[in-house]
Amino acid sequence: MKHTSRDIRTANRYEVLRHIIAESPTSRQELASVTGLSLATVATLVGELLELRMITEVGFEDSAGGRPRGLVAVHASGGTLIGVDIAETYVHVELFDLALNVLARTEEDLRPGEHRPEQVVGHVAAAVDSVAARAGAAGGRVLGVGVSVPGQVDRDTGIAEYAPNWDWHDVPLLDLLSEHIAHPLHLDNPLRACAVAEQWFGAARGRGDTVVVNLGTGVGAGLALGGGLHRGVSNSAGEWGHTTLVLDGRPCHCGNRGCVETYVGAPGIMLNLREACPDSPLLRPDDQTATIEALARGVADGDPVAVRVVRDTARYIGAGVANLVNLLNPELVVLSSWVARRLGGPLLEEVREAVRLHALARPFAATEIVLSPIPSDPVCLGAATFALEGTLRSVGQRNGVRPGRTASGAR
Amino acid sequence: MKHTSRDIRTANRYEVLRHIIAESPTSRQELASVTGLSLATVATLVGELLELRMITEVGFEDSAGGRPRGLVAVHASGGTLIGVDIAETYVHVELFDLALNVLARTEEDLRPGEHRPEQVVGHVAAAVDSVAARAGAAGGRVLGVGVSVPGQVDRDTGIAEYAPNWDWHDVPLLDLLSEHIAHPLHLDNPLRACAVAEQWFGAARGRGDTVVVNLGTGVGAGLALGGGLHRGVSNSAGEWGHTTLVLDGRPCHCGNRGCVETYVGAPGIMLNLREACPDSPLLRPDDQTATIEALARGVADGDPVAVRVVRDTARYIGAGVANLVNLLNPELVVLSSWVARRLGGPLLEEVREAVRLHALARPFAATEIVLSPIPSDPVCLGAATFALEGTLRSVGQRNGVRPGRTASGAR
Ligand SMILES: [Zn+2]
Ligand SMILES: [Zn+2]
Repeated sequence: MKHTSRDIRTANRYEVLRHIIAESPTSRQELASVTGLSLATVATLVGELLELRMITEVGFEDSAGGRPRGLVAVHASGGTLIGVDIAETYVHVELFDLALNVLARTEEDLRPGEHRPEQVVGHVAAAVDSVAARAGAAGGRVLGVGVSVPGQVDRDTGIAEYAPNWDWHDVPLLDLLSEHIAHPLHLDNPLRACAVAEQWFGAARGRGDTVVVNLGTGVGAGLALGGGLHRGVSNSAGEWGHTTLVLDGRPCHCGNRGCVETYVGAPGIMLNLREACPDSPLLRPDDQTATIEALARGVADGDPVAVRVVRDTARYIGAGVANLVNLLNPELVVLSSWVARRLGGPLLEEVREAVRLHALARPFAATEIVLSPIPSDPVCLGAATFALEGTLRSVGQRNGVRPGRTASGAR
Repeated sequence: MKHTSRDIRTANRYEVLRHIIAESPTSRQELASVTGLSLATVATLVGELLELRMITEVGFEDSAGGRPRGLVAVHASGGTLIGVDIAETYVHVELFDLALNVLARTEEDLRPGEHRPEQVVGHVAAAVDSVAARAGAAGGRVLGVGVSVPGQVDRDTGIAEYAPNWDWHDVPLLDLLSEHIAHPLHLDNPLRACAVAEQWFGAARGRGDTVVVNLGTGVGAGLALGGGLHRGVSNSAGEWGHTTLVLDGRPCHCGNRGCVETYVGAPGIMLNLREACPDSPLLRPDDQTATIEALARGVADGDPVAVRVVRDTARYIGAGVANLVNLLNPELVVLSSWVARRLGGPLLEEVREAVRLHALARPFAATEIVLSPIPSDPVCLGAATFALEGTLRSVGQRNGVRPGRTASGAR
């Protein structure tokens, strides 16, 4: 049975806090109106959030002829959250207040080859220590630390099951981290971090079924369906990057051929460039970031090779996104992560046109395709949001089960 | 807000009746145990179903030392349901009792070219009249008629928006049918009919996220995610048949190239056969059914061309199913519809092997792939189930909103 009353209460708690963060101050009456919940239910949920000090009473507003209505607002300084983005070449760590404003940020570069679990954990621990010290200065207790790591993860056991770029297999990442970090830890991957960031703070807020397409070194799709994240039976849903687009096409490190990722991940785009113009000065061998930036500048300058490569790439992305549109019929598709941000508007226009050519007319007409509006690292924001959700999930479990994982590693 | 208390009550009502149909007689205590609902909630839902005469009290069982427990069972003769499967070449109509046993069946062939809406409606009306007369003889009131039609449908307005094989656009099918049929009507398409049939009566009963892959003239995937059907923003989710598997591959009637359907729909399989052996005696031009049957017999007899064509076809199906496995990470994939049934076990084995080659190892290991165990037409069964669900949805709306559509066409 999927729909336990505890699941529903947790989903409603998320929804109420999401609205308060989006629109502070607000009244219980307004919350009831936007969420469709009864006033009594809203009052109970608001009471829980007040008790957690995640929101505060901030006065009253007049209601036409009736009693003045109590107003609540997010209690930004009621606690802090930490989001960790472990990527192929860097670790980003950000400290947030409860309104999810960035208070502090630390970046650690990973040198090529520096990807043994102990090395990565050392960088994460140092960076978390650094920003957590700033939390202490700001007077805010750290409610939790969300950690995003690429690949397939088991969020219940805290194990990084498979990270293809590093050949990690079953790394007990949260146990390793808990030897250094004394706050509740929450593990997930960047696909779901970006999706939850869009749901809470980005383009998907208040919208229906949404697919968040991550375009970075690797690519994938976070699936926000039916009001929550679709995770699948073993928490690995969203591997759009490893769906076949060109049967018997380019070899992929996953062992398959013709995967979407081999054409539209940053290394795939470099290959598209090499195929279009082997000697292009836009190509910076061994530097994905510089190549994508050179392509973006080339498009802005009207360089025909850059324009052609972005169009070729958009055609692959568009055919792959059309598959998502035909299969899932989403209301919204969001292009996220660093390749989408750097190639921006020109890429978006080409992708929309390519999706139109490949998708069925009616689902295409029902789908809006946009760039992520989140200005900071969406993975850090989403990871911190997992920590926020973990705190909200723990309400009502406080006399017994401990929320999240703690330094002891116990559950 | 997605999770209204009415949605939850309806989902719980489905769940309780599903268990009673699966396991009659049963007690409220056992229902509470298998569904995870409270005994009080189960008692309320059982009361509603008793009042609807969909179940009956059938006695008591001893409980160890306690009070004897009241037993309930599905009231098979408490009403009847009609399921209509409108396909490219035929109309099947079946009459069911409330335990979803088939009481009567009528088939009408559609001649080539006989697909104007009025012609099709005439066949459906005649067939429904014929089986409804049997319902009267059996003393069972008809609670509703579920109608499945290929393509994209708007179940709220009863409009067949787009049926590619017939070039139907925005046909007001339920309004046309309601001029002949005086029972509540419910419209949907065969992808969702097969999926709901598996959820209630087939391989997906009691299982988690399931993809029901329909292999017929057209192909598609019904998505049973999160305990319900994933329909998408405009009720067109599941168009797996029109996802690109071979970029720039075979032309498809949808306007795209390289769609899954062009390789694994019955006409696509005929093309696979023609490519493998242009003069094969297995090929029956203009007769899909005969060709697929000849292939099935050929495989059974060890005919090398038949074996090769089924293997080629399974490779395409497997790559397409691997895309579903990687993207959705389902617990279960069910191969359904007439091509899957006819090619059976040998096809299943080849598909499993092809999925293994194309999918990521972990989601593949988490997914079971089976043939549909439903012995009759799953589309009729699923369509009748939509009528059953419509009846259950209407509980509590009886003082006001009318359930489903009626002969007047009013809503
Ligand atoms: Zn791959
Ligand atoms: Zn197509």
